[in-house]
Amino acid sequence: MPKPERHVLVCLNARPPGTPKGSCAEKGSEALFDRLKSLVRERGLGSRVIVNRTNCLKHCSRGIAVAVQPDNVWYAGVTPDDLGELCDAHLREGRPVERLLMPDIPWE
Amino acid sequence: MPKPERHVLVCLNARPPGTPKGSCAEKGSEALFDRLKSLVRERGLGSRVIVNRTNCLKHCSRGIAVAVQPDNVWYAGVTPDDLGELCDAHLREGRPVERLLMPDIPWE
Repeated sequence: MPKPERHVLVCLNARPPGTPKGSCAEKGSEALFDRLKSLVRERGLGSRVIVNRTNCLKHCSRGIAVAVQPDNVWYAGVTPDDLGELCDAHLREGRPVERLLMPDIPWE
Repeated sequence: MPKPERHVLVCLNARPPGTPKGSCAEKGSEALFDRLKSLVRERGLGSRVIVNRTNCLKHCSRGIAVAVQPDNVWYAGVTPDDLGELCDAHLREGRPVERLLMPDIPWE
């Protein structure tokens, strides 16, 4: 692939069960990451978009956290049902998904 | 911290010893990641820069690979000796370190 147009970062940080602020892994981010990678390929974006897993993106209580670079757009509470729209609107057409945007709160 | 100005991604992908193209972990990326996180704090950038570890950034043979977003600047062959300049020139002042730039080759 050429240099990616977009770089998607999915938080896979895990915390022990019962941690008050929770973690993205606890909310299913491993499966979400796998699904997003598949979807990017299925929708023909594999040569334009790279998807990576990361450690903590510092929004544990609002996970699953996802960042899309170089747009510096951060998403909160992403679920598998959101991934189709994320691919089509943002990753293909460059239009961020407004309803998923991280609120303007401090990074934890 | 407020929304980060810059988002640094360090590849920590590991491959079995002897894999022809090598891996960033084999080249010491775990220690590099830890050192960069410390340095970002020491140099007063902790409230402006977030440093994350990722899985494969697709430049195994040119590791250690590091990406700096939202600049979409990718670096190759980063060593611990480069981190001071990376912090001061790029992360603080926004001037990419030219000598470390990833060559314009396909992502692996």
